[in-house]
Amino acid sequence: MTEEMEMLYEKLSYCFENRKFADLRILLLDMEPADIAVFLEERLDEKEQIMFFRLLPKELASDVFIETDSDTQEKLIKAFTDKELKAVIDDMFLDDTVDIIEEMPANVVKRILKNSDPENRKQINELLEYPDDSAGSIMTPEFISFSAGMSVDRAFDKIRKTGINKETIYTCYVTGAKKKLIGVVTVKDMLLADKSDIIENIMSASPVTVETLEDKEQVALKFQKYGYLALPVTDKEGCLVGIVTVDDAVDVLQEEATEDIQKMAAILPNEKPYLKQSVFSIWKARIPWLLLLMISATFTSMILSGYEHALSALASGAVLYAFVPMLMDTAGNAGGQSSGTIIRALALGEVGFKDVLKIVWKEFRASLLLAVSVAAVCFAKLMLIDRLYNGVTVKIAAIVSGVLFITIVMAKLVGCLLPLLAKKCKLDPAVVASPFITTIVDALSLIIYCSVSIFLLS
Amino acid sequence: MTEEMEMLYEKLSYCFENRKFADLRILLLDMEPADIAVFLEERLDEKEQIMFFRLLPKELASDVFIETDSDTQEKLIKAFTDKELKAVIDDMFLDDTVDIIEEMPANVVKRILKNSDPENRKQINELLEYPDDSAGSIMTPEFISFSAGMSVDRAFDKIRKTGINKETIYTCYVTGAKKKLIGVVTVKDMLLADKSDIIENIMSASPVTVETLEDKEQVALKFQKYGYLALPVTDKEGCLVGIVTVDDAVDVLQEEATEDIQKMAAILPNEKPYLKQSVFSIWKARIPWLLLLMISATFTSMILSGYEHALSALASGAVLYAFVPMLMDTAGNAGGQSSGTIIRALALGEVGFKDVLKIVWKEFRASLLLAVSVAAVCFAKLMLIDRLYNGVTVKIAAIVSGVLFITIVMAKLVGCLLPLLAKKCKLDPAVVASPFITTIVDALSLIIYCSVSIFLLS
Repeated sequence: MTEEMEMLYEKLSYCFENRKFADLRILLLDMEPADIAVFLEERLDEKEQIMFFRLLPKELASDVFIETDSDTQEKLIKAFTDKELKAVIDDMFLDDTVDIIEEMPANVVKRILKNSDPENRKQINELLEYPDDSAGSIMTPEFISFSAGMSVDRAFDKIRKTGINKETIYTCYVTGAKKKLIGVVTVKDMLLADKSDIIENIMSASPVTVETLEDKEQVALKFQKYGYLALPVTDKEGCLVGIVTVDDAVDVLQEEATEDIQKMAAILPNEKPYLKQSVFSIWKARIPWLLLLMISATFTSMILSGYEHALSALASGAVLYAFVPMLMDTAGNAGGQSSGTIIRALALGEVGFKDVLKIVWKEFRASLLLAVSVAAVCFAKLMLIDRLYNGVTVKIAAIVSGVLFITIVMAKLVGCLLPLLAKKCKLDPAVVASPFITTIVDALSLIIYCSVSIFLLS
Repeated sequence: MTEEMEMLYEKLSYCFENRKFADLRILLLDMEPADIAVFLEERLDEKEQIMFFRLLPKELASDVFIETDSDTQEKLIKAFTDKELKAVIDDMFLDDTVDIIEEMPANVVKRILKNSDPENRKQINELLEYPDDSAGSIMTPEFISFSAGMSVDRAFDKIRKTGINKETIYTCYVTGAKKKLIGVVTVKDMLLADKSDIIENIMSASPVTVETLEDKEQVALKFQKYGYLALPVTDKEGCLVGIVTVDDAVDVLQEEATEDIQKMAAILPNEKPYLKQSVFSIWKARIPWLLLLMISATFTSMILSGYEHALSALASGAVLYAFVPMLMDTAGNAGGQSSGTIIRALALGEVGFKDVLKIVWKEFRASLLLAVSVAAVCFAKLMLIDRLYNGVTVKIAAIVSGVLFITIVMAKLVGCLLPLLAKKCKLDPAVVASPFITTIVDALSLIIYCSVSIFLLS
């Protein structure tokens, strides 16, 4: 938090506690809703929150409400009268209402729907039907549309009349019969055109569109690729049903990146900010993978136990054990590098399963280079450092470095192939990330290490 | 690639090869610059690329140019005549020109600057001075500004006259003497106001601003927090020097997420798309961490060697070795979960070093819950499964589970503390991610495992 914001928050607290409501109002009118929401959540207790909310200038209330987290929203809604609730809901865009509804318990949802306009209620119910990951779930039906024959002048009149309630006014949509989308026109086009120009002549007739059921991550990537401020959402018949705006796309990109990072760290996705997660919800998100990976490590124990007699029979058995952790860590790191790279490239749409041969070929060559470098340094390290404290012979050093070489190449191939296969099977590539690959590569490299050692040393 | 796009590309190829340039032009005018750039890069060889580029409708040329990658840009520039180069540069926004210049070799940069307008050249040089990670490096000086006393009608005239060359026309800036920023007004405000209203009365007088030297990741997070389409950039005196638009913020967020994922996978940041990276550049990005982590694993070898005699003296020495991989993997996973969580929370600005006590306390409680669950399941697994293939006794099972418990708690604390400490030391938290933490936690858990085993079993 900046000092400036800290001072502002102190002024707010002072006005609020000393009931200087007129001063409070003046301060609030100059603030961003997101900053007011932080003040409300972090500086006030539950009782004060509802009191403070009632003091908000009417035009700010629903904007601040949207910016609070779902726990606060639930508490506020429970404290609202029906009239207050209706005022807040009527002022929100429908996609925001839907986002809030999705986080609320059934009784709160009922109250929200009961207090919506019949027309809004119908649209909310339609939006709620779309699958969680689809364009439909993040779109809003509040857009401005023109008919093709309208003049620019009349189009501006329409914006002036209806624009205040639309999520964006800068991109407008041209529709024909049955709301069929026939073009897109921006306010910039309109401002640079003549007042008497006809919309049809200045619109772009083959706009980028998304379909209601398109994956919302794909939609967000389209924003990044084409750089638009809003994209039209059409149904299968090409009729315009809503728009997605760039702010929603930004949220999707950030959420997806967070989700990928969580999966790569062996955590189940968890949308809440860290400080608002309960200890139990942290446990719930982390325990499944931790248990699964612990149990699957049974294989490594089995392998080591299986080779135990043969290894113990060797004079250098104990020396060989000492390098197991190093081999396994390096294998895990090498595999994690490849899987991390491919998972991110898949998420950005840079590669797909169709590129599998190109990717394997590139990873194979890179892995040879990496394996040679690491094995050579490892051999040198074994002869220079490790020889000082344990009985490494040239033969053992060669075996360890040789196995390290094979392990790295293998780890890289497994690391790039598994995310691609997951994608092909319509699974999330991030699920087969580093921790999962480590377990597989550990087992494989142990088998190679033990069998090669026994073969060459006994 | 969608089928629709595939068909479009085939049509383009057909027209291009058969020299049907009028048809080609019609197709191109309806396409997105980003899609044309993909066609140019993926379907044409070097010689065809420049020929194709010369056929582009003039209004598309620089938009397509910006969308190609830096290797293609370099090749094109080298093939351009000075006149062609000047035409492309004059049509670009200055922030895009600066982005391109940053990727080019010195002789190409010279040519670009030589072919820019003197006024542009001066501004480009100023933009190039800003540090790589600063707001200044992603801003553009091409914005629309009004004086406070202008009427809405006259402001619209100014947009119509100068808007075509500005990066956005939807957010305009009100400046006073010496370009001091005094307010922000949107085209929406202007459209909903009366034509004779004075800008000063409808502008927002305390806009969100960023400073030229502010970290560009912070700037991008402000876009996400406040939802604006553009933010004004001011110098230390509060004078307006440029704007950042939301499309640049989206790029920054995506780049930063990619960078964090790369660092978490022990790779040095690499901005190029995966398929365009050379095998050597992949090697260069991955070898440093792979070597460093391999060498630092010397500690685990040292520890195991140090305890060798004592462990071999135990009847159950070989059984104990068999669980080392499982212990180490679980420790790595537990630490990775915490470091991944905290690194992402830091990147999203959800937490900071000031929250260290809250975080440690939360992670400590979560780690106790997790450690109890995993240790209990591990004990059951050892008695039910592992007993079948190796000589696990109740005592050994208790030792392994007990050490697992301690290891998980320790790994979680190290995993959450290190990224926070890195942040405090102004290092990138993502650098001390999972692979690094695994190495530390491995060594610690091995010491505990060996010493506890020897103490209790000998």
